[in-house]
This record gives sequence, structure tokens and C-alpha cells, in this order.
Amino acid sequence: MKNPLIITIGREYGSGGRQIGQAVAERLGISFYDKKIISLAAEKSGLSHEFIANNEQRVRNGLMQNLAASAAYSSGFFSGQYLPLSESIFISQAQVIRDIAAKESAVIVGRCADYILAGRENTVNVFVHAPLEARIKRIMELYHLDEAAAMKAISTSDKERGNHYFRYTDQKWGKAQNYDICVNSALMGIDKTVEMLVSMANIEERV
Amino acid sequence: MKNPLIITIGREYGSGGRQIGQAVAERLGISFYDKKIISLAAEKSGLSHEFIANNEQRVRNGLMQNLAASAAYSSGFFSGQYLPLSESIFISQAQVIRDIAAKESAVIVGRCADYILAGRENTVNVFVHAPLEARIKRIMELYHLDEAAAMKAISTSDKERGNHYFRYTDQKWGKAQNYDICVNSALMGIDKTVEMLVSMANIEERV
Repeated sequence: MKNPLIITIGREYGSGGRQIGQAVAERLGISFYDKKIISLAAEKSGLSHEFIANNEQRVRNGLMQNLAASAAYSSGFFSGQYLPLSESIFISQAQVIRDIAAKESAVIVGRCADYILAGRENTVNVFVHAPLEARIKRIMELYHLDEAAAMKAISTSDKERGNHYFRYTDQKWGKAQNYDICVNSALMGIDKTVEMLVSMANIEERV
Repeated sequence: MKNPLIITIGREYGSGGRQIGQAVAERLGISFYDKKIISLAAEKSGLSHEFIANNEQRVRNGLMQNLAASAAYSSGFFSGQYLPLSESIFISQAQVIRDIAAKESAVIVGRCADYILAGRENTVNVFVHAPLEARIKRIMELYHLDEAAAMKAISTSDKERGNHYFRYTDQKWGKAQNYDICVNSALMGIDKTVEMLVSMANIEERV
């Protein structure tokens, strides 16, 4: 029997990647994981949900920071016991992602899921991006921000996601060759992009 | 009236990008340009077809080489009269690409067409890639090479294409954000990838 189908979605902030992932999961009738992973990982690691949510994408490069984090880390049974906190969060999320992939078909947004599941059969890795103007417009509307605030949020998030991805995968975020399909969501719009990904997933299932 | 539809295709050697482009053009009933551009550019610049074919992707970085090329360049009416040869070739190809885009719908493979037509309405920029193993297999079959020779051809071509793209566009070749769609041709195979691009082009035309 084939592995369950996993679609991983990496996305630029404001590209609509999360919304696209959710719609694809609904259309295919499979599970959708995004922030939910945080909760599941939190339970596994013994770290609080709030702590993970606040720290999972803030990569600490300084040695002192890592040492400080290690020293502060006092949680129980999890194998990342002597690791800096950021590593522990990553490892616990990776375990959650592998557990999902072993038992059910799902769309998983972010969290380096493409890298964590590298080499797995029946996995389609997607990256969603959009031109800056389109992303600014989307963020302004979605969060009722002015242009400057939207630009700042985008630039901060891109930097954090890029750093996070590079730190854990040693790969450049948004490099075409790391995904099966990368798409500019502004070209066809959200709905048509969803349609395209759904028919791709159906083709892949039939192969 | 809308611009004619242009689909540009960048591709890794051995990914089937050229074959995909040709099939997409056939299915859409539009023109297909690849090496043909070389001939057209050759006519425009006064440089011989053979010379362009041999030099268009060999980027010369050394100052001495550029000076030598400039000194050797003695061709007639074309505006790149005092430019190094590689620049003249690029400029003449860019002009040919702009002429095509002004008059007819077409698929254009390679030659930094995505960059040359940046900002143009009704242009879909595609990048086709595939995992190394799939590319080696394809090149071995296509050109009756052994594995080592296929690997060497792939590595040389990737390097040349990457350097060429970076030199003229100042952008990284294969960066997802520079394309509307990037696809791993090995995921669904050539035929299904063609199908997907054709339906994308049709959607884009309808927008």
C-alpha cells in the first residue's frame, strides 16, 4: 500500500500560502496542520504552547544566547534535554510531522516539513510566493495595517523564515529545486492556484 | 487588446524543459523559439550563426578576455559595436525576444527571456527542474552516454546556465520568486507537466 499523501507548503508571508493549503486540504478531504503542530509539539516536549509559539522561528545565532537557553532548559523526558531550546522545539516538531505522515494524508504548512520528510514517497513539496506589491495589499486588507506596517511585517517574517529554514536544513529557502512546485499566487489568484494544486495531487495519487 | 501570451521557460539540463516547452507551444497552437533565436539574432548582429552558437553561454569574466573579445569584434551596423562579443550576443538576442513578444504568442526557452521581458503583461515565467538521478537517466537515454559522461554534461551545463543568467540578470538562476511557476518534471512526468502548464496558460488567458 502507498504512503498517505503529504503535501508540504512553504510560503512567503502574505502570499496566501496558508489559505491555499487549507483549501487544498478541504478539497482533497485530508487533514490540515499549521499552528496545530505547535500544540502537538508542545505536549510532546513538555514546553509550553506559548513558549514554542513565541520562539519557534526566532533563530538565536549567538553562542551566549544558545548557552543561556541551554542553561535555562529544564524540561523532562524529551531527548533534546541538553540542547538549546530552539533545537528542542525543532526536534519535537519534526517528530510530530513524522508521526502525522506515518498515519494520515495531510497538508502541512511551514515548519521545514519538506526537509523533515525528504526522500519520503508520495510527498509533494510546494512553495507559494507572490510579488511584494501583492503581498503588501493582502496583509493590509487582512490585518487592517497601513502600507509601512505591512511592509515591515513582511520583511521581518521573510527574514525569520529564511533564517529558520537555513539553520535547520542548510538550504536556501525558496530555492526552486527544493520543491516539486513553486507558484506565484498572484498570477492566477488563490482559487485557481488551489485548483491547480488539487489536480496535481490527484494526478500524483493516480501515478 | 491584450499582449500576445508569452511563456518563457528556464530549465535545468536534462529536465525535459525544452521538450515540455515545445509540447506546450504545440498544444496552444503558438510559436516555439529556442535555437531559432540564435539564427535570428545572428542575422541582426552580423555575427555568424556558428560563432553565436559556440559563445552565447560561455561567460568570459576575465578583463583580458573581454578586451581581447572587444578588439577582435569588427562587425558592422549593430549598436553593440564596441562591446565585448558576449554582450553583443546578449543584446541582439534580447532584441529578437522583444520583437517576438511584440508580434505573436510564443513559448521561448532559455536566453534569460524572463528577465528581458520583466514587467510585461501576459507573460508566464516557468522554470523546469528535476532531481539529478532523473536528469542523468534522461541524458543517458537521449544521447546514448554512460553515467559519468551524462553527469559531466549536466554539471557543465548547469554551471554555464547559472553563470550566464547571473551575469546578465544579477539574479540567481532557479530562485523560485523569479518565476510564476517552477516544477519538478519528474514528479508527474513530461506529459502531465505539459497538461498542467497548458491549463495554467488557458486560465491566464481567460483572466
